[in-house]
Amino acid sequence: MSSSYGENLRLTVFGQSHSRFIGMTLEGIPAGKKIDPEKLAAFMQRRAPGKNEYSTPRSEADVPEFICGLVGDVTCGAPITAITANTNVRPGDYEALKTTPRPGHADYTAQIKYGGYQDASGGGHFSGRLTAALCIAGGICIQLLAEKGVRVISRILSIGNVFDEGELTESTASKSFPVVCDGRGAEMKEAIKKARAEGDSVGGVIECAVLGLPAGLGDPIFGGMENRIASAVFGIPGIKGIEFGAGFEAAKMTGSENNDAFTVKDGRIETATNNAGGILGGITTGMPLTFKAAVKPTPSIAKTQKSVDIITKTEKEITVTGRHDPCIVPRAVPCVEAAAAIALYDALLGRNKEGYQI
Amino acid sequence: MSSSYGENLRLTVFGQSHSRFIGMTLEGIPAGKKIDPEKLAAFMQRRAPGKNEYSTPRSEADVPEFICGLVGDVTCGAPITAITANTNVRPGDYEALKTTPRPGHADYTAQIKYGGYQDASGGGHFSGRLTAALCIAGGICIQLLAEKGVRVISRILSIGNVFDEGELTESTASKSFPVVCDGRGAEMKEAIKKARAEGDSVGGVIECAVLGLPAGLGDPIFGGMENRIASAVFGIPGIKGIEFGAGFEAAKMTGSENNDAFTVKDGRIETATNNAGGILGGITTGMPLTFKAAVKPTPSIAKTQKSVDIITKTEKEITVTGRHDPCIVPRAVPCVEAAAAIALYDALLGRNKEGYQI
Amino acid sequence: MSSSYGENLRLTVFGQSHSRFIGMTLEGIPAGKKIDPEKLAAFMQRRAPGKNEYSTPRSEADVPEFICGLVGDVTCGAPITAITANTNVRPGDYEALKTTPRPGHADYTAQIKYGGYQDASGGGHFSGRLTAALCIAGGICIQLLAEKGVRVISRILSIGNVFDEGELTESTASKSFPVVCDGRGAEMKEAIKKARAEGDSVGGVIECAVLGLPAGLGDPIFGGMENRIASAVFGIPGIKGIEFGAGFEAAKMTGSENNDAFTVKDGRIETATNNAGGILGGITTGMPLTFKAAVKPTPSIAKTQKSVDIITKTEKEITVTGRHDPCIVPRAVPCVEAAAAIALYDALLGRNKEGYQI
Amino acid sequence: MSSSYGENLRLTVFGQSHSRFIGMTLEGIPAGKKIDPEKLAAFMQRRAPGKNEYSTPRSEADVPEFICGLVGDVTCGAPITAITANTNVRPGDYEALKTTPRPGHADYTAQIKYGGYQDASGGGHFSGRLTAALCIAGGICIQLLAEKGVRVISRILSIGNVFDEGELTESTASKSFPVVCDGRGAEMKEAIKKARAEGDSVGGVIECAVLGLPAGLGDPIFGGMENRIASAVFGIPGIKGIEFGAGFEAAKMTGSENNDAFTVKDGRIETATNNAGGILGGITTGMPLTFKAAVKPTPSIAKTQKSVDIITKTEKEITVTGRHDPCIVPRAVPCVEAAAAIALYDALLGRNKEGYQI
Repeated sequence: MSSSYGENLRLTVFGQSHSRFIGMTLEGIPAGKKIDPEKLAAFMQRRAPGKNEYSTPRSEADVPEFICGLVGDVTCGAPITAITANTNVRPGDYEALKTTPRPGHADYTAQIKYGGYQDASGGGHFSGRLTAALCIAGGICIQLLAEKGVRVISRILSIGNVFDEGELTESTASKSFPVVCDGRGAEMKEAIKKARAEGDSVGGVIECAVLGLPAGLGDPIFGGMENRIASAVFGIPGIKGIEFGAGFEAAKMTGSENNDAFTVKDGRIETATNNAGGILGGITTGMPLTFKAAVKPTPSIAKTQKSVDIITKTEKEITVTGRHDPCIVPRAVPCVEAAAAIALYDALLGRNKEGYQI
Repeated sequence: MSSSYGENLRLTVFGQSHSRFIGMTLEGIPAGKKIDPEKLAAFMQRRAPGKNEYSTPRSEADVPEFICGLVGDVTCGAPITAITANTNVRPGDYEALKTTPRPGHADYTAQIKYGGYQDASGGGHFSGRLTAALCIAGGICIQLLAEKGVRVISRILSIGNVFDEGELTESTASKSFPVVCDGRGAEMKEAIKKARAEGDSVGGVIECAVLGLPAGLGDPIFGGMENRIASAVFGIPGIKGIEFGAGFEAAKMTGSENNDAFTVKDGRIETATNNAGGILGGITTGMPLTFKAAVKPTPSIAKTQKSVDIITKTEKEITVTGRHDPCIVPRAVPCVEAAAAIALYDALLGRNKEGYQI
Repeated sequence: MSSSYGENLRLTVFGQSHSRFIGMTLEGIPAGKKIDPEKLAAFMQRRAPGKNEYSTPRSEADVPEFICGLVGDVTCGAPITAITANTNVRPGDYEALKTTPRPGHADYTAQIKYGGYQDASGGGHFSGRLTAALCIAGGICIQLLAEKGVRVISRILSIGNVFDEGELTESTASKSFPVVCDGRGAEMKEAIKKARAEGDSVGGVIECAVLGLPAGLGDPIFGGMENRIASAVFGIPGIKGIEFGAGFEAAKMTGSENNDAFTVKDGRIETATNNAGGILGGITTGMPLTFKAAVKPTPSIAKTQKSVDIITKTEKEITVTGRHDPCIVPRAVPCVEAAAAIALYDALLGRNKEGYQI
Repeated sequence: MSSSYGENLRLTVFGQSHSRFIGMTLEGIPAGKKIDPEKLAAFMQRRAPGKNEYSTPRSEADVPEFICGLVGDVTCGAPITAITANTNVRPGDYEALKTTPRPGHADYTAQIKYGGYQDASGGGHFSGRLTAALCIAGGICIQLLAEKGVRVISRILSIGNVFDEGELTESTASKSFPVVCDGRGAEMKEAIKKARAEGDSVGGVIECAVLGLPAGLGDPIFGGMENRIASAVFGIPGIKGIEFGAGFEAAKMTGSENNDAFTVKDGRIETATNNAGGILGGITTGMPLTFKAAVKPTPSIAKTQKSVDIITKTEKEITVTGRHDPCIVPRAVPCVEAAAAIALYDALLGRNKEGYQI
């Protein structure tokens, strides 16, 4: 199904940008797991809009209300459902989109797919708003992974043509604008401001790493960690590419350059390099699982654009109004972590199934 | 499950590199579809080993034997199972891999995951040999898509640091070494020969396009065409990255550059550019669906490499023997097409489900 | 997953007896389908408690609030989520059940499965209360089936040892106490009152028929209509048996008695009898699909019962307090219809997938 | 999908009655499990045809050939595929069935569903022959359950109107004609012979019990053991009803009669009776899991029957030739055990997933 994910757990996200609530149901989480609501709220805040100059002025509290599945803060084995209200809704902005679709948005494809019955308001079910539901589920999985010593971290690798330098570490990931080099971070912010000033937008790349993973998670062929993570990460609107470890760079290397030599460090088997991004044959090696995701520039821009009238099949100009981020990359960072955490916790439950207790 | 794919059809691939047979079962294909065995054999031949100087000398006939699901050449509605024998097996090559894993291979992760019970011979279930099963299913789906006017084409975009030029077209895709610029093709072949001569290997990038697609295939969030295709394509061993349309380049653009303006051409709604790769909101636009997949260099190289003895936890050198491609990119081309075709035919069946007949 | 159902649609039910809300998400319903809220409310009322002398005094409004998936009353293609509040909650009744389980309830198995973390209050996720969520989904599917001329009807076949007479028809199904013979109905009500007066409870059998079905729904082997319907109907707490057509009686017949002869009636192929219950090889014949479901007597009874203290492993008497139906059969009737409708609409979408438009 | 089963393992059965092979793929079995081929063959023999006077003269060796997934006799973690040839095929018997369907068979529904493209020969994918594939998978799961001390036993409860007496025990289950009372067994055999002599057939009921189960297997709502077992057992052609524990009899009882009192026996919590059939809230109690399955009389009978010509829509008589069992109940016994074992091993893997090691 379009809005469900998972093999050993099952996540369903629901809601439209301007429906009464959005939310998620997470099935398959073992009973007896404590969920820290404050940590979850703090995680959600990293995605929340309206916080600073480079995000949308739309403001949503984004506090998940758990309506079932927990007793106090502890999972009871039943499906966990949390909802959050869409409080700051301005439906008037989106009237004409069914016949004159916004370039880069799902307006046109939704119109074709749903025959005009889609909820066009605010992008409906295609809205980035739905990533709040993803982050509820992901925030839970991050806490469950942390119990096992697994941490999901990430940084902004680039905004437009500005690239960060250095290596992603946990201290970088904890920054409010997570870049290794704050000077490059300042340039990135400038690029965003400039795009906004020009009625335009800008994209970027997010790097994510999962640390502390045991070896042995994932399955061959279609159940590989690449498949599973890609399948979750492409659930975030605007993601157009993903690569693991050296990724597209590996395609330029020779085998002797790309292969990660095995080595022993502190009595533990590791690899000297990590071009594989911690995955061989779809299965975790125990090295950091690393990947990069490409985020396209926000399609909603103030500049006038060319579109068509679907009914009359004539060309037509369109000016997108409404409130939008000139760059969604900063807010997409926790979404990417959420998607990765869900994929990994799902794989970890699958590892249990085989008779290993992690 | 690790070896199954699909929502509206279900593909299961089975077999190990050196088991008696490998094969696949494909459920959910409507009854009454004619499968042309010669076209399928021709498609399989593009993947088959042992054909030329830049592939492994291992030779397998790779003719699928349909053991059920067809009456004559026509689908009967029951699951379709085809098998193909592993005739050219040399198990002796792989004895020591359980304790001394080959860098870049799944030997180590298989050992951890399966506790030593894995079939290590020839890479077992992780072997590229399994892509023959993928190609049986993909070859069927390609024929079923062709009935609807949908064509899946691809080319080698790069080998190592040699990049093709120009645009992918159907005539390029029909070449035995599918590149637009044959001069670049010659350079690519040189790069492969050089790698072989040095006991090394080389990777590359494959570009794929699906033409003639109707708009409206795919679903929002986790059911997007990006999710579905990535989930299938990462089922091919050695794929480490995928990007759709402009992909990672889109991350460098502004919204006004990246957004594809809608336009009317011959009375049909199209986009002036196709940075979206024919997918908006996870759903096909009717433009060519385009993506690129990064293939890592073959991990099996003749050069001596560093590994470890898993038991004694001491470092150790390893020299990989056996028969291997210095570059799997040419043989991976039909595999990528197969994976894309399976994902698309699955989505097309899902579109039927909604009450549209395609 | 435990709380999900469906192949072509996906239903997830969530909530516990005393959580803030219970609800359901239904994915995969095509866009553009009008849902009549009054018809749905009327259907829900048939299940609602507190209406008469033979049901629990617990009163719940049971009006589904749709929080997403509809625009006005019309499906928009996104997952449909509806919730309904648990307003009449008395958690105090259920304190001691974790250590002293009620016979016939899930208290003991929940304790073992969830290690004491289950929500014991009101039976938690095991409560019959969850069938309200099932009825939301089922009520929607009943409306969608009605569009195609398909009607789901049922009657009370027996309560305790009192059996109805005659054949199930649509006029019987529309009665508030759906039995053919009202005299037998009066006896059934007496049996319920008697059970209540004795601090006891009573079970019964529900007969269900689906009329107006096209031939060709369902799949062989595990996808048969028997498998699909059984899988949904056993989702209703207290159902302990199901039989299709002649069912267990067929086991006593000879083939010449049990086989339904084909015949032509008004130019349409039918069978002269319907011992098959409208299903051959798992697939609908176009005759009424008929089945019977056995409902056990409500396990909550006022009489003192024998239980154990799980901790001390000593025997112990238990008296169940709280508000309970002396017979859940009347309220289970719409639940059985709901389950059947969900299974059939799911199969009908699957039939579309194959290229037939129903 | 029609031919797949399972949540934590995945079984796919494939083949038609007269295709070259039938077979099955079983994914998700942990690595390192020894499969005893002789025990499996012995189990298969219990289903095999042609053994005695009351079964079909069709003779198939029914020895599963494992083509992958095992190394020696030990599972390697890859999907396990086994096939068995259809050696004794007489396609000529089935020519006219597409236009003149046999009563009680899937000929008519297959014709409608597959539009005439079905493999009609021998019943195609609907044939009881496919239960050989089910028995391969079930025979494996029975061995895996036995490792945990779980035994699946069954008996013939009735043939036609002859009912066995007494309680099902392991010694009964080990008989070649498994009934408690051999006198009744003799009567049953007489009933079968009589049916054959009259060109007719007869049905029956199979009782199955699973002993040695831990408490805690299964899930609430749709994941209950009733749902899971019913979903598998209805995969056997000819099964028309299933009931758990007291089943339909429970519907006649009062709560005080039907509720199973908890008690302590040898320091272990049990129930004094087992009307629940070892399942409360869908989850195993640790008591024997018991159910009964109704088998309809073989639809293939020698007597002339009424059918229709589908094309001309005129009535027509039909005489079924071919080789058929006058009673499939004895051969269905291991099939029911197989289905139960698959459902239980699947649930047991799911229990592992939650962090319990069984």
